[in-house]
Amino acid sequence: MRAREAGIILGTLPPGTTNSIADVAGVRVGHTTLIRGNGALVRGVGPVRTGVTAILPHDDDLFRLKVPAAASVFNGFGKTIGLVQLAELGQLETPILLTNTLNVGRVADALVAFMVERNPAIGVTTGTVNPVVCECNDGFLNDIGGRHVGEQEVRAALTVAPGTPVLEGTVGAGTGMTTYCFAGGIGTASRCLSPAQGGYTLGALVQSNFGRCGDLIIGGVPVGRELEEQRQKRVALHVGQEPRREQGSIIVILATDAPLDARQLGRLARRVPLGLARTGTSGGHGSGDLAIAFSTADRIPHDAGPLVRSAQVLNEQNPAIDGLFAAVVEATEEAVINALCTAHSMDGRDNHWAQALSLVETLAILKRYGRIQ
Amino acid sequence: MRAREAGIILGTLPPGTTNSIADVAGVRVGHTTLIRGNGALVRGVGPVRTGVTAILPHDDDLFRLKVPAAASVFNGFGKTIGLVQLAELGQLETPILLTNTLNVGRVADALVAFMVERNPAIGVTTGTVNPVVCECNDGFLNDIGGRHVGEQEVRAALTVAPGTPVLEGTVGAGTGMTTYCFAGGIGTASRCLSPAQGGYTLGALVQSNFGRCGDLIIGGVPVGRELEEQRQKRVALHVGQEPRREQGSIIVILATDAPLDARQLGRLARRVPLGLARTGTSGGHGSGDLAIAFSTADRIPHDAGPLVRSAQVLNEQNPAIDGLFAAVVEATEEAVINALCTAHSMDGRDNHWAQALSLVETLAILKRYGRIQ
Amino acid sequence: MRAREAGIILGTLPPGTTNSIADVAGVRVGHTTLIRGNGALVRGVGPVRTGVTAILPHDDDLFRLKVPAAASVFNGFGKTIGLVQLAELGQLETPILLTNTLNVGRVADALVAFMVERNPAIGVTTGTVNPVVCECNDGFLNDIGGRHVGEQEVRAALTVAPGTPVLEGTVGAGTGMTTYCFAGGIGTASRCLSPAQGGYTLGALVQSNFGRCGDLIIGGVPVGRELEEQRQKRVALHVGQEPRREQGSIIVILATDAPLDARQLGRLARRVPLGLARTGTSGGHGSGDLAIAFSTADRIPHDAGPLVRSAQVLNEQNPAIDGLFAAVVEATEEAVINALCTAHSMDGRDNHWAQALSLVETLAILKRYGRIQ
Amino acid sequence: MRAREAGIILGTLPPGTTNSIADVAGVRVGHTTLIRGNGALVRGVGPVRTGVTAILPHDDDLFRLKVPAAASVFNGFGKTIGLVQLAELGQLETPILLTNTLNVGRVADALVAFMVERNPAIGVTTGTVNPVVCECNDGFLNDIGGRHVGEQEVRAALTVAPGTPVLEGTVGAGTGMTTYCFAGGIGTASRCLSPAQGGYTLGALVQSNFGRCGDLIIGGVPVGRELEEQRQKRVALHVGQEPRREQGSIIVILATDAPLDARQLGRLARRVPLGLARTGTSGGHGSGDLAIAFSTADRIPHDAGPLVRSAQVLNEQNPAIDGLFAAVVEATEEAVINALCTAHSMDGRDNHWAQALSLVETLAILKRYGRIQ
Repeated sequence: MRAREAGIILGTLPPGTTNSIADVAGVRVGHTTLIRGNGALVRGVGPVRTGVTAILPHDDDLFRLKVPAAASVFNGFGKTIGLVQLAELGQLETPILLTNTLNVGRVADALVAFMVERNPAIGVTTGTVNPVVCECNDGFLNDIGGRHVGEQEVRAALTVAPGTPVLEGTVGAGTGMTTYCFAGGIGTASRCLSPAQGGYTLGALVQSNFGRCGDLIIGGVPVGRELEEQRQKRVALHVGQEPRREQGSIIVILATDAPLDARQLGRLARRVPLGLARTGTSGGHGSGDLAIAFSTADRIPHDAGPLVRSAQVLNEQNPAIDGLFAAVVEATEEAVINALCTAHSMDGRDNHWAQALSLVETLAILKRYGRIQ
Repeated sequence: MRAREAGIILGTLPPGTTNSIADVAGVRVGHTTLIRGNGALVRGVGPVRTGVTAILPHDDDLFRLKVPAAASVFNGFGKTIGLVQLAELGQLETPILLTNTLNVGRVADALVAFMVERNPAIGVTTGTVNPVVCECNDGFLNDIGGRHVGEQEVRAALTVAPGTPVLEGTVGAGTGMTTYCFAGGIGTASRCLSPAQGGYTLGALVQSNFGRCGDLIIGGVPVGRELEEQRQKRVALHVGQEPRREQGSIIVILATDAPLDARQLGRLARRVPLGLARTGTSGGHGSGDLAIAFSTADRIPHDAGPLVRSAQVLNEQNPAIDGLFAAVVEATEEAVINALCTAHSMDGRDNHWAQALSLVETLAILKRYGRIQ
Repeated sequence: MRAREAGIILGTLPPGTTNSIADVAGVRVGHTTLIRGNGALVRGVGPVRTGVTAILPHDDDLFRLKVPAAASVFNGFGKTIGLVQLAELGQLETPILLTNTLNVGRVADALVAFMVERNPAIGVTTGTVNPVVCECNDGFLNDIGGRHVGEQEVRAALTVAPGTPVLEGTVGAGTGMTTYCFAGGIGTASRCLSPAQGGYTLGALVQSNFGRCGDLIIGGVPVGRELEEQRQKRVALHVGQEPRREQGSIIVILATDAPLDARQLGRLARRVPLGLARTGTSGGHGSGDLAIAFSTADRIPHDAGPLVRSAQVLNEQNPAIDGLFAAVVEATEEAVINALCTAHSMDGRDNHWAQALSLVETLAILKRYGRIQ
Repeated sequence: MRAREAGIILGTLPPGTTNSIADVAGVRVGHTTLIRGNGALVRGVGPVRTGVTAILPHDDDLFRLKVPAAASVFNGFGKTIGLVQLAELGQLETPILLTNTLNVGRVADALVAFMVERNPAIGVTTGTVNPVVCECNDGFLNDIGGRHVGEQEVRAALTVAPGTPVLEGTVGAGTGMTTYCFAGGIGTASRCLSPAQGGYTLGALVQSNFGRCGDLIIGGVPVGRELEEQRQKRVALHVGQEPRREQGSIIVILATDAPLDARQLGRLARRVPLGLARTGTSGGHGSGDLAIAFSTADRIPHDAGPLVRSAQVLNEQNPAIDGLFAAVVEATEEAVINALCTAHSMDGRDNHWAQALSLVETLAILKRYGRIQ
């Protein structure tokens, strides 16, 4: 059950129809989920608890019709590929893929193969292509060294049909991930601005794999601390798990139909940590935290065309930009909590265990704090 | 009364002796507060509700013995001077001054005069000096166009005696400022790490002038929303005040005795928005938000000296760095709330009025939410 | 005599009518030059060899009709004010002022006074204003500690009439400056793109105060090394001058009528060091080198207005962007050489002496190297 | 023949023993060169003109004993992986690999495999690893879409024996590349500082694939323009080649034994464009230009160890830093010219042809310009 369905209302702006990044017209999300094997880790064999998630900004050929985009690195302990060019040109020319840390190379290679197949001119008559692949570390549950996500899995995620609902929790790239030490990696949410502020939609999707249990805050309530106190000695949250300082990370993808240029999208991306902070984190050393934002309102043609093109740009003197900032914060917060609420418990390599957050206990705590009725 | 004295405990790390930036040994804070006149604004005359605040990292000659430092700009809608060189060299060679937006030039000029007086070689035989002056906009209460802070006021703030307690609220550079639309601009707090994490102290001082009333969160509780609902139609919070989109800002100064180099201090500074987020903001367009962090553990000599110098640097593979990150978030949050709790109501130009946050009402709300007893 | 008049042709693109930044329609440059006193330095009295230079992007009210802009800091050993906001918003809302290092505060204050006078709403009903002031260190010749540039001098530079030719050499902010240890601080040049590349004009203006004599290269020829060899023991270039590691700097202002947004202007600004490199520098530690680029093709209104505005943006897939890059490199190179060629020798404080580059000797060397006929 | 052997002396600092990046003690460079097939392009088959080049900072386990490092992106039209973490932590934990643009993913994957093999704890008990792979586009000669560099080729480059001389020209990652449209991709050079400046060594290695023929400058002489004029209609430099706006790039790796921290290494990396500028470029839109600098003077242990570690850091107040800056500029310039001078002509896919620079003609031009005797 998603947070909002459970009665947990975060923020004050209204969500879109599906309360997901897919509320931004044209945006699709595809997952390939890999769950294979049990027991002791055998590198290259398993157990496998991983996957890949694809975010596609629109239905056209993205290489030929790029979208404005920007990234913001909050804590650069991460292995993302593609940000150098994204920053220089302010545009995105491939779907964004999310996967596990050690699989970035192989997934980027598969994305290149996919793009080249669809645009055979790449590398022959028209330059190259800039694959964007982000990652978190699912090594607690997954045979991450085995790099099990390859061309076939990538292709499956990329060919998701329009209209497919966005699955959350222990799915796709989030399959083997944990959020505040509970199971769950993928979450999403959206917010809509009032007609006076342009009626724009903003959606967030997180690949969430960060945080320590005791830090978890939901709706301002220290749920993590309460849970830790309750469960002391009752349940070991993670069997055999050492404190995992270096293994976190969170990737946040923002999509909007507001007409923003790359500089403005960068301002959106820089607000993402405010949303994360509301869930309790203080930004761990080893957590590779970054955000990518894109707008679907403009299409930048790959081919030279005329000297000058017209672009519609949001007037920042207008308060709508503040509405978008608030939407970023709220959607990011809710996407993280959705990743937690929707996840199933997941076992993994060497009998590691990531327990799902108990919604019953969480709701009880929120009630006790007067946060819900 | 400060937040903690009122029973509002934010975060879990222990504060230092005075719960202020001055808990970092050697750090001094001086204020000059200017309150003059009433009624209608006459540019250059008043009413004056402004001032200047000086943060001095140590008691020696800072130009000759610089300290490692870094800055992070979260939202660059601000007029700070000094960050270009601070970023390149990773060091601070003057005290940091805080004042109002339109007064930065005059205050920087006064700081140069002060430095040159103490180091007559500057500009003659030894290069120049890089003054660091940050600002927020106190134009809601103050005749900001009058630029009333000059050499004398700067000098007074800079010559604060060691051991002077750090005053908070509507004082110094924070005199005419408002936080979440309540009176109050200067706040401070500190945190101490455990002996296992080096026993370091980290202090924060904020010049706070940001936020909308309805967004205010204290200890996870939506105090601002509750207050707005209670007061609807009962009290106009700000007489004659239009929505002030472009007039916010918050400056956060971090000091620590942990041995950090400039890169590491930058990582601290980048965590500041997480602390701000806990007080409810989503980072307004017009809010110039930035942080400067310095360490008192190293002294970088101005004169050439030997080819190589030894530096002690915190080992980031050690969890102490995470302790410092948490300290940044907690101290920043508490410093903002202290700015609110300690401030007196303040009138200003054109009968504008900034009301102090009612501690009685705030505590009642926090009790209702189970946040305090 | 300017370089090109002397037969020194740098680069291959054609210059504009006046071969100056004022070739970009609407751009004006005003100087105030201060030359007073002789002999021993008395701080606050003189000798004075300094000034201020104003670059005005257009004839309208720049605060109300801002222009897109970007900056790039190549070596941040400098004390510029105004870049934080320029980077965040990608716009310029005051003229750019150039002056000496220790005078930045006073000049910024004067610029604020000037802007507030023309826009009395500033600080009262419409937020604040972001003054942009850059600097180099003229302390070798000037009583820099005296900070002799004040409101009157700033006002004079800012009220330059349209159509005024751009003076070069030891004038305005460049009065007390030296380039490759020869007299001269202000230089300018421009380049025009072919009609196929839009026919755009790009102009550069430098405040040049960098380089060691021996490093000077003109048109690929090691003029500085040749001059040093010739003059060894014959002429002491600078009487009483110590090696001045920390006192250099170069500021480069780029103007263009090409329709570029802030991101694209940043790309132009980042090419400036390529032009500087052609004059021989390897970027000294103490040289504060930065560039600001603006476009006159767009006007960003200060007032809120409609939600969305239309902007014309250069299509980067089109080779015109490469033409602009080449124009930046060529105009920057020629502007530096113009600063050298047009300067008169200048005495200064404590009988310091900056000798003008001998054009006769320079041309002889260039001939010997087959660079001119 | 290398430039210096041919009598072309660039700059004034002395080179090290081998005038290569391997003059920095411990640094090794390994190449795998792939040349297979002829004639028409068949994607996945060939012709293959590509390879991989490995730069290893020291002989120990780099994952366990990292080195300080920094990167600077001059023009981010590139697909490098690894810079996000390198920037955050200021360290390098894998060898740097260079390859072709579309092969980055596969090569990064192979590097991960190599690192994991040697450090089986990666992904199991000790976090992950950050592979650094840079690239240029060799698609003019090579079946770049075929991504022919795999695990075996990477392994071969990485296991180069200590003491192996650094090969240059059309070799390793530079096999299918062109510099100013002439054959040749890999070049290297080094510079030594005087004992008074610490006697440090700095080496540069370039993967060079940028520039238009007419822009080529050697030692200040417009060799490219002269060659173009001479050859007009005599020889078609590139058969069937369209203007290749988007296919350039240059990667520059700097190594030094000077004790520099990450911030200081960043300053070195930012001087690289000055060296490139001396060879004539104005920084094309489509040229992905970046530099990575590392120091071998420090080892940062992977494991937690003590809270604080001692580091030796160059005192920037000392002129040695300027010596290093000059060394960067000179070594970069000479490395590019070496890539040109040492290359053999190379045919490629679809009968494309990259002709070697004629040393005879070049020397004749340099003589004519009085640049050599």
